[in-house]
Amino acid sequence: MLAVFGHLNPDTDAITAALVYARLLTRQDIEAQAYRLGDLNFETAFVLREAGVEAPPLLETLPSGTAVALVDHNESAQSLPNLSELTVTRVVDHHKLGDLSTAQPPYLRFEPVGSTGTILLKLFREAGLAVEPLEARLMLSAILSDTLHFRSPTTTADDQEAVAFLAPVAGIEDVTAYALAMFAAKSDLGDTPAETLLRMDYKVFPFGEVTAPQQWGLGVIETTNPGYVFGRQAELLAAMDAVKAEDRLNGVLLSVVDILNETNRTLVLSATEDKVLREVFGAAVSGQVADLGARISRKKQLVPALETYFTPQN
Amino acid sequence: MLAVFGHLNPDTDAITAALVYARLLTRQDIEAQAYRLGDLNFETAFVLREAGVEAPPLLETLPSGTAVALVDHNESAQSLPNLSELTVTRVVDHHKLGDLSTAQPPYLRFEPVGSTGTILLKLFREAGLAVEPLEARLMLSAILSDTLHFRSPTTTADDQEAVAFLAPVAGIEDVTAYALAMFAAKSDLGDTPAETLLRMDYKVFPFGEVTAPQQWGLGVIETTNPGYVFGRQAELLAAMDAVKAEDRLNGVLLSVVDILNETNRTLVLSATEDKVLREVFGAAVSGQVADLGARISRKKQLVPALETYFTPQN
Repeated sequence: MLAVFGHLNPDTDAITAALVYARLLTRQDIEAQAYRLGDLNFETAFVLREAGVEAPPLLETLPSGTAVALVDHNESAQSLPNLSELTVTRVVDHHKLGDLSTAQPPYLRFEPVGSTGTILLKLFREAGLAVEPLEARLMLSAILSDTLHFRSPTTTADDQEAVAFLAPVAGIEDVTAYALAMFAAKSDLGDTPAETLLRMDYKVFPFGEVTAPQQWGLGVIETTNPGYVFGRQAELLAAMDAVKAEDRLNGVLLSVVDILNETNRTLVLSATEDKVLREVFGAAVSGQVADLGARISRKKQLVPALETYFTPQN
Repeated sequence: MLAVFGHLNPDTDAITAALVYARLLTRQDIEAQAYRLGDLNFETAFVLREAGVEAPPLLETLPSGTAVALVDHNESAQSLPNLSELTVTRVVDHHKLGDLSTAQPPYLRFEPVGSTGTILLKLFREAGLAVEPLEARLMLSAILSDTLHFRSPTTTADDQEAVAFLAPVAGIEDVTAYALAMFAAKSDLGDTPAETLLRMDYKVFPFGEVTAPQQWGLGVIETTNPGYVFGRQAELLAAMDAVKAEDRLNGVLLSVVDILNETNRTLVLSATEDKVLREVFGAAVSGQVADLGARISRKKQLVPALETYFTPQN
């Protein structure tokens, strides 16, 4: 039985990709079970509720040597703690390649597209398998989520074609209305504790590995209601300070992405983050908020620039 | 312009995969140029001569930041010396994943099949592109070469189906006769210097990286005429000794694979290699020759066992 899971602090792509890839493998006579590595966010809970599907079981550890398939991630810092002891046989992902290595030739499928869902649809087509309505709805939700309904610079023509193909199969007539409902669900944060908000879509990245290794925690809150988030700024800064110590980080950033206006305003904890944000992005910083303009993609706009900054070229 | 190349000490799969992938990308409006990282072996020279195609140009270095596509390899020890400074945007491979990482999401296509040629055929099909006779001949040759005409344990059903599809497109009526001609060309080693023989199909592998890092050089001579090779045993052992010092290796092995009888007899340089071969493979060693039985695949049978041996589990 192959265990299939997405990254820690799962988002809609991580959860739905695990569900869909496990179904695809099962239909190809490869026994597979989807798992999640954390709580559902409000958007993902909405998507699964609308689809009428249960969340996959929570996974906290696996015995050494267990065969696993990773979706929507490949770096050990974003996976099960003992990933290096597991046998990674398959990865379907759309992120940069990190520290993964394998003892045997794996099955790897990486494409620089907006969502793992887009790659999964290709796998269905290549296998000559018809996409079922539930699978279509899950892949479509993942693509809309990861690309912010095509607003993110990570969006590709493949993502748009995939949604155009999937919407009628999923029985979703008005894709825009469905996307807005997803984003509204995501933005309805209620009285969620500040640290939970920070960790909802949060990844730790190692930077500058060769010269001066750094660990940075990068959180993102994508919302249609940024006013709500900034209303809790003091709480969130306190949570960032705690997480920075807890995770032994060199820096921590929390980007508040206004989905509809496509802007990024990032909370600035200390002089360290202030300096980096000014030097890397030329950001104006005021009242512990850095204006990162239209840089709404952590993967495409924040991480590569930080990686370059921390890796001096000779 | 994307530079496309296979591994150092190129074999038929490395050379033909670079040629074929560059053609495939060009047909998809991605400008690409195939290169080689070393001299052709006799089999590959035969394949290109029969196909009426020139060898790709030799590549020794590329400027930092150049965009490259790797085929049939992914580890830095098997690639251009400054691989870590290049921008790897694409990899098509069937080996274990080594030390590759990228700054941006790449296009990766790894499958645990017998030959890169088998994966390339899938890429043609998925792109809806007809395979031209020359491309078919090159992919077919790669598959026959890497799988020793389906004798190697790396052979999969996909490899066999690919050859069955490609042979008529390539205009090769008798695949068995063509494979034997390839293997005869490969075995016609003439007065090739001993060090050239050793380095013809030779890869350096890092083992036991976590605990006690080791570098081992693993050469293979696949031949229909093992008697010729053992006739030059003293010369070859001297070359192994020189290469071990030159490449600062912990161990060096030269496996003489009898293609037709599917056996592996490996030259044993010193007490170090003797101990490892006995402990890892339970090999009988006599007269500086270890009997490795039917272990004819370096990738599938030698490397994983050595990796496990040098990486003690807790």
